[in-house]
Amino acid sequence: MEKVKGLIAAAFTPMHENGSVNHALIQPLVDKLVADGLTGVFVCGSNGEGPNMTTTERMAVAESFVKAAQKRLLIFVHVGHSSIAEARALAAHAQEIGADAISAVAAFYFKPVNVQNLSDSMAEIASAAPQLPFYYYHIPHLTGVGMDMIEFLKIAGPVIPNLAGIKYTATTLHEYQACLNFENGKFDILYGLDEMLLPALAIGAQGAIGSTYTFAAPLYLQTIAAFRNGDIAKAQVSHAYMVEVIRILVKYPPIPGQKAIMHMLGWNLGPCRLPLTTLDAAAYDKFHEQLSALSFFEKAPAKKLKELK
Amino acid sequence: MEKVKGLIAAAFTPMHENGSVNHALIQPLVDKLVADGLTGVFVCGSNGEGPNMTTTERMAVAESFVKAAQKRLLIFVHVGHSSIAEARALAAHAQEIGADAISAVAAFYFKPVNVQNLSDSMAEIASAAPQLPFYYYHIPHLTGVGMDMIEFLKIAGPVIPNLAGIKYTATTLHEYQACLNFENGKFDILYGLDEMLLPALAIGAQGAIGSTYTFAAPLYLQTIAAFRNGDIAKAQVSHAYMVEVIRILVKYPPIPGQKAIMHMLGWNLGPCRLPLTTLDAAAYDKFHEQLSALSFFEKAPAKKLKELK
Amino acid sequence: MEKVKGLIAAAFTPMHENGSVNHALIQPLVDKLVADGLTGVFVCGSNGEGPNMTTTERMAVAESFVKAAQKRLLIFVHVGHSSIAEARALAAHAQEIGADAISAVAAFYFKPVNVQNLSDSMAEIASAAPQLPFYYYHIPHLTGVGMDMIEFLKIAGPVIPNLAGIKYTATTLHEYQACLNFENGKFDILYGLDEMLLPALAIGAQGAIGSTYTFAAPLYLQTIAAFRNGDIAKAQVSHAYMVEVIRILVKYPPIPGQKAIMHMLGWNLGPCRLPLTTLDAAAYDKFHEQLSALSFFEKAPAKKLKELK
Amino acid sequence: MEKVKGLIAAAFTPMHENGSVNHALIQPLVDKLVADGLTGVFVCGSNGEGPNMTTTERMAVAESFVKAAQKRLLIFVHVGHSSIAEARALAAHAQEIGADAISAVAAFYFKPVNVQNLSDSMAEIASAAPQLPFYYYHIPHLTGVGMDMIEFLKIAGPVIPNLAGIKYTATTLHEYQACLNFENGKFDILYGLDEMLLPALAIGAQGAIGSTYTFAAPLYLQTIAAFRNGDIAKAQVSHAYMVEVIRILVKYPPIPGQKAIMHMLGWNLGPCRLPLTTLDAAAYDKFHEQLSALSFFEKAPAKKLKELK
Repeated sequence: MEKVKGLIAAAFTPMHENGSVNHALIQPLVDKLVADGLTGVFVCGSNGEGPNMTTTERMAVAESFVKAAQKRLLIFVHVGHSSIAEARALAAHAQEIGADAISAVAAFYFKPVNVQNLSDSMAEIASAAPQLPFYYYHIPHLTGVGMDMIEFLKIAGPVIPNLAGIKYTATTLHEYQACLNFENGKFDILYGLDEMLLPALAIGAQGAIGSTYTFAAPLYLQTIAAFRNGDIAKAQVSHAYMVEVIRILVKYPPIPGQKAIMHMLGWNLGPCRLPLTTLDAAAYDKFHEQLSALSFFEKAPAKKLKELK
Repeated sequence: MEKVKGLIAAAFTPMHENGSVNHALIQPLVDKLVADGLTGVFVCGSNGEGPNMTTTERMAVAESFVKAAQKRLLIFVHVGHSSIAEARALAAHAQEIGADAISAVAAFYFKPVNVQNLSDSMAEIASAAPQLPFYYYHIPHLTGVGMDMIEFLKIAGPVIPNLAGIKYTATTLHEYQACLNFENGKFDILYGLDEMLLPALAIGAQGAIGSTYTFAAPLYLQTIAAFRNGDIAKAQVSHAYMVEVIRILVKYPPIPGQKAIMHMLGWNLGPCRLPLTTLDAAAYDKFHEQLSALSFFEKAPAKKLKELK
Repeated sequence: MEKVKGLIAAAFTPMHENGSVNHALIQPLVDKLVADGLTGVFVCGSNGEGPNMTTTERMAVAESFVKAAQKRLLIFVHVGHSSIAEARALAAHAQEIGADAISAVAAFYFKPVNVQNLSDSMAEIASAAPQLPFYYYHIPHLTGVGMDMIEFLKIAGPVIPNLAGIKYTATTLHEYQACLNFENGKFDILYGLDEMLLPALAIGAQGAIGSTYTFAAPLYLQTIAAFRNGDIAKAQVSHAYMVEVIRILVKYPPIPGQKAIMHMLGWNLGPCRLPLTTLDAAAYDKFHEQLSALSFFEKAPAKKLKELK
Repeated sequence: MEKVKGLIAAAFTPMHENGSVNHALIQPLVDKLVADGLTGVFVCGSNGEGPNMTTTERMAVAESFVKAAQKRLLIFVHVGHSSIAEARALAAHAQEIGADAISAVAAFYFKPVNVQNLSDSMAEIASAAPQLPFYYYHIPHLTGVGMDMIEFLKIAGPVIPNLAGIKYTATTLHEYQACLNFENGKFDILYGLDEMLLPALAIGAQGAIGSTYTFAAPLYLQTIAAFRNGDIAKAQVSHAYMVEVIRILVKYPPIPGQKAIMHMLGWNLGPCRLPLTTLDAAAYDKFHEQLSALSFFEKAPAKKLKELK
């Protein structure tokens, strides 16, 4: 697989009101993401509530996404788990169903204590899907595992044959830049914080994975285009807009907040699972009002569900 | 179930060299714990590497312990998981196989953000095994979830009919004392830090769960007996001894370190699973030497495997 | 100086409404502490807002306390500062004015990075008052410096001739017990968390320093007496009472909350200094009501200001 | 004062071998910084070991820098202190001696607990030097105070007449971008992490304050020039170089490490003060070798001391 260029949506998992997975919405969701210009989908990650689902459910969701995609965009399956044995099962399954890549966070109950330990752990997972590119999912604020990523590439590179790169979800852009440049850019380092996409572009980011790309990709693609055309001022303006949107979003629990945004845009992806909660009506209305005050629903030209049908 | 008195061993899960579960050792391990005077076993908890195992494996291990116990001591099954759906499956299974109680840590990828959220999450798990007493497993340093436990009892008490109490694994003894006294001692609050057992006794602890009770219960039972007899000075001396042992232990990764101790005592419980690592030969030897210097192998009168056969 | 037995009050610094130090209240405050049965006073510590005051003010406050005490109780002067040079000046001054001991937290802007570094830093301070006993003030939750205290005693003991011991303000009682026993009890390890005094007694504490001893020493002295008489149940009851009081207190900012308690008891010690704030009237009234509901003002038999005059 | 454009060196404080301030080196250091193209100097900040010095020493150092500058570059005096009273004295002094601006970190023993509290605290300091622009120094990883900076500007803006902006030392560039744009760019938000300068430029940074500008400003000025000329690729290359240099630096304690770099460049600025330590000979030599391997001494075209004389 070549290095990823463009945006990958860290998609939400659609659920029924009773909390079971709503597989029927996966096809239209994928169609929308294709229409929005996405390069790929990241399935069962944090935003997809992977760690909230059973192994059986995660496999079924991955399968639905792969089928819906029909190779129109890349399917990354997140297989991270507190149990490496479960992660291996998820990885093997992803390869079997024809996913394009896998990714895993560090184990998050017992945690790797040094880079070697992290590399050993990831090697076990990656080797269960040897034909798929493997991306380590670096997200210290959720896992509490914040290793030096250059050291990781140094140690893991030679021993994980299918190590493709890192999903780098942290604000430390200096290290991100070092990773991009490591061994002449050998690895694919995808950036994972949507609200810092423009600064990441400035130091060389080519691909990015994020949750808000599920509903606002066209806006970000404008930022990227302006930046590539050398119009930094224009890029700053469109990027600043999404920074404002996200500043509002993070006053709410972020995943439920984004499922609420999807609902506002016509996509009823259902509730979140505990310990995540769903926005109550008052919070939903206030959030809608705040987004309206930013003209969000005019500016976010993402495809609505009905437009696809 | 009445309140627990005495010691519950947070047992290690025996494994073969290849990392699979060694069920054959569970029977003798339980026999030893009975012989050592334990009141119960805590199965598939942190020390049992529950979060490192698959759901299938956890169920099988719980089953082996229940069968081995034959009601000679209590079997607590830990069912905590990042996915509440998996936790519910584990809980229902524990009830089905005849375990005596269940316990669960807070979800540890996405984490409860307030006490209500924690209570809601635990209620979902507890309701899957309605006939078993449920103990919330409070262990902030591992889960990162450090709520006010009095607030938890206030909120969860009325809505979780089978809430029996808390496995309280934290150094905050003032809160522990408040929990013991809450509503005239309504709940069973088991203390979870072995190296602070004596101070916990001083404020009213009756039962305790801990990993070192797997191999050093007789020593702790001496401390308890001295304390109950009003011989504080004697209790201090025997407790201080285990404090010294644990000060050495924590220089090593604690679970692998304790599997090493078990090995030194004749119990080959096998390796740990990644991201936990197993002590290498040099570390093992040094650790053995340090324990020998404390006369640990004379003072720890726990039953050896061969003595049971 | 012999080892300290009994209670040392971490006294608040009386201030005028305009924020300047109210030296006139220091004499009656000390008289009250003598009447309450205190063994000593800890001056310009955290509760005394030492780090909020200028060096000049700290010296003046220390001087007033020494004069007021007239050797009726011990005066510990806290000299910790982000600047070791300022700390040395405070230490030399404390010796000059006839204080009984000095104590210092670790530097708290730039922080010691290992035990050797901590020992080197404390040695610089202690050597500025070579005739006074020096107590390292271990309070990780405020300074962010949480070293192994046994290692500290090992390294600092031989190189700080006037090292008397530690003011140990942390919940880790196992380490506290190890410190008490280190080298046959060579050092004086004073316990610093009032709400864990009883468990600390159980493992051997003889002396303690704390803020609530300023207004509730007689209650704690009852706990200690019951414990020394072997009446653990009675000790638990009186200790549990203060645990409840402190559970209410910590819902408020603790130092302003305690100045409010003093005010309720007839001692107008004035406001706190920024960034500490003073309880507003509504909070004060609610706090008073909560304490009344616990019959605090009947149970806390501390001397009121007017009773002294 | 207009908004700052360009680079401000967070200068080290020269010291004699015995730890006293070496005022004689301040004049040549300032001359060098003028020659290197700096816009200003930040005096007695973290890198200048302000919190390690006495108030008297800090005043003297500020005075030497003001005199040496002769208005050729801006002198920012850092006045932050755990005691607001001391900070006010430092602020008033800075105004009196003709400094160009003052800046203060949040109090760092007792810490502000919310934005209002932070604003109140900073207002007290700023009002002691009403004729000087005041910059809040946001550096959460050192102070542990990590408030929302937009909320700070909203609350502090109307009540601190001389609030000029923020020295923003954090990796959260999305918030930094929001601050730059707040109220149409009303405030001067100087960026404080040298290794993230290029990404900060991409979202609109105009001025920056940092320690490595003391010895490598010309390299950063090349990055800025390339960026302003639209040559992002070139800017990336020169910025990546300093990222590599800083990756080596941070393996050492950073302030001692940078004093070592200065020494390698011919500037003997002496030791650091405890709890900071000075690199020993072995570390110094290894560090020198690592920098040589990057051709640092050819690429860093900063003026050497002898070239100035």
